[in-house]
Amino acid sequence: MTRLVHVSAPSGSYEVKIGSGLLPAIGQEVRAVTKAQRCAVVSGTNVYPLYGDAVHSSLECAGFETVSLVFPAGEQTKCLERYGELLNFLTYNRFTRSDCVVALGGGVTGDLAGFAAATYQRGVPYVQVPTTLLAAVDSSVGGKTAIDLPAGKNQVGAFYQPSLVLCDTDTLQTLPERELRAGYAEVIKYAVLGDPALFEALKNRSVDLPAVIETCVRRKAEIVAEDERDTGKRRLLNLGHSFGHAVESRSAYALLHGEAVAVGTAMICRAAQSRGLLSEADRDAVIALLRDYGLPTETTYSADELLDTLRLDKKISGGKLHLVVPREIGRCDILPVPEEELRAWLEAGLR
Amino acid sequence: MTRLVHVSAPSGSYEVKIGSGLLPAIGQEVRAVTKAQRCAVVSGTNVYPLYGDAVHSSLECAGFETVSLVFPAGEQTKCLERYGELLNFLTYNRFTRSDCVVALGGGVTGDLAGFAAATYQRGVPYVQVPTTLLAAVDSSVGGKTAIDLPAGKNQVGAFYQPSLVLCDTDTLQTLPERELRAGYAEVIKYAVLGDPALFEALKNRSVDLPAVIETCVRRKAEIVAEDERDTGKRRLLNLGHSFGHAVESRSAYALLHGEAVAVGTAMICRAAQSRGLLSEADRDAVIALLRDYGLPTETTYSADELLDTLRLDKKISGGKLHLVVPREIGRCDILPVPEEELRAWLEAGLR
Repeated sequence: MTRLVHVSAPSGSYEVKIGSGLLPAIGQEVRAVTKAQRCAVVSGTNVYPLYGDAVHSSLECAGFETVSLVFPAGEQTKCLERYGELLNFLTYNRFTRSDCVVALGGGVTGDLAGFAAATYQRGVPYVQVPTTLLAAVDSSVGGKTAIDLPAGKNQVGAFYQPSLVLCDTDTLQTLPERELRAGYAEVIKYAVLGDPALFEALKNRSVDLPAVIETCVRRKAEIVAEDERDTGKRRLLNLGHSFGHAVESRSAYALLHGEAVAVGTAMICRAAQSRGLLSEADRDAVIALLRDYGLPTETTYSADELLDTLRLDKKISGGKLHLVVPREIGRCDILPVPEEELRAWLEAGLR
Repeated sequence: MTRLVHVSAPSGSYEVKIGSGLLPAIGQEVRAVTKAQRCAVVSGTNVYPLYGDAVHSSLECAGFETVSLVFPAGEQTKCLERYGELLNFLTYNRFTRSDCVVALGGGVTGDLAGFAAATYQRGVPYVQVPTTLLAAVDSSVGGKTAIDLPAGKNQVGAFYQPSLVLCDTDTLQTLPERELRAGYAEVIKYAVLGDPALFEALKNRSVDLPAVIETCVRRKAEIVAEDERDTGKRRLLNLGHSFGHAVESRSAYALLHGEAVAVGTAMICRAAQSRGLLSEADRDAVIALLRDYGLPTETTYSADELLDTLRLDKKISGGKLHLVVPREIGRCDILPVPEEELRAWLEAGLR
């Protein structure tokens, strides 16, 4: 059974296909959404050995010329140097505006390949093939692409929608336990944001992975349709991310993105509770669920250490950071917090 | 007298203001179109010493914090390394999504600063302040931003509209003669594309510079409103550019962009005439006008040398290059030419 979610963003519409056994048919799927002659498969050293051959042969059967570029696994790959390598690789392989980039991997691969696709010749088609839970439920959908700068995560990027997202749930079988847990941090985010039923189901472990992915993607598709460019409602998807990105950057990416988001979510729940915005019971329930999925909820960084990184958050505008604050399980508010009050929020989050 | 042209592109609307004495008022102008607290003035080593102080003091009078980054003049600056420098500069100065980039200079500055603005935090506002004729009539308007790769010009970029274009015609007074002539190559392009009256006026030297700029910007605004992303009518603006870019890249940017466009325009006229698509009289008239404005119309590169670079043209799609072919003065067609026929077109253009 293949689950279909249609994403209808102002700048482009596409399908997210979720199911078992989709990878061997990727050639026909790409054929159906592009006029490409060539496909560049961009992947990482963990994922490519597992699925590279299957992807290439399906693409070639469908008549594409294929090339591939494989980067070291890990957040360090999302940098200007690798971005430049990928662009030059496309040029040397004479990629034209109608050719296609295929991002085969997790969030790092999708973000980097997506940003290159967004900007090579001012935009070529790309297809997301998420192979981690985190990429499946979050980063592969919605068209946010990015690379990091030394001073901060996702500081450079573009809003650029893929032509297709193909999530073969078989690939999640080979996902290391730690990566799978990290993905659940984003799943729990969707539950806290707007889905108390999902929250309960996660607690009771009464929902299977493909259904979880579909639920999250459907929620994201709704939000992106309303606010593609992150000026309003889409900011909600940053629950746990403002503090989380700061923790992640500080750790020099020793923490996985999902792990840092778990810490950030726990922090914002503590801070919200300390200000009377969230009940103790809900704070404790969120933190307990994160722990139940094996996720960290504490950090040893100080408020001062995190503050420096936090000042670079993209949600700062007009001297205020737009923090996503949980009010109860299933409801969050966006609160513009003046920069000078951020330390107090961080301190309350660390307590 | 300030001339106003309104650009209404699908992704954003803004004014182009053309006139004398506009620079000293830039602070209020930027204030009127952004919520920025900080402005980063990006400029080149030729332009910044002339106008940097005036721009900074006007911005500061209007209450902005200002910083500036000045790059070496010349196309070599439009590279990944300088792009990275500029992005890191914005980060270190804690630029947020609401702060503003001011591009003070010619096409190189505008393209580089515009691309950084398009991608820093996935997009911050920017203002174009063209100080060359070429930038005034063409590159500052319409939202095409780009940098070069070693293998080709403008291979990486974004469609991203400025918040304002402020063209102070006083700055053109200090423009070196060679730069001014190069700008006329783009002006002649507009005339050949769709404005026989402008063609005549250029021949008779019966039109002043601000009027020329307004005419060209108005024409560009019409085209961009219809086809912002260069999939149809906007391709017309590439008259002379496919062959021109190849000549420019081959020369390692010893030729100015406008000079290369002049050569490219002459080439496509010769090739069009040789195929019976353009009359001898019109071909000769275009080439004579280019020469009259001191522009080159020949190159010593061979068809083989140019072919290699031409294969990277962004107008290639589905194995065909979309060439803009003059049919008479004031009318051009877009012709999809198969890659294997390009050599013959180049040879006819070189004859």
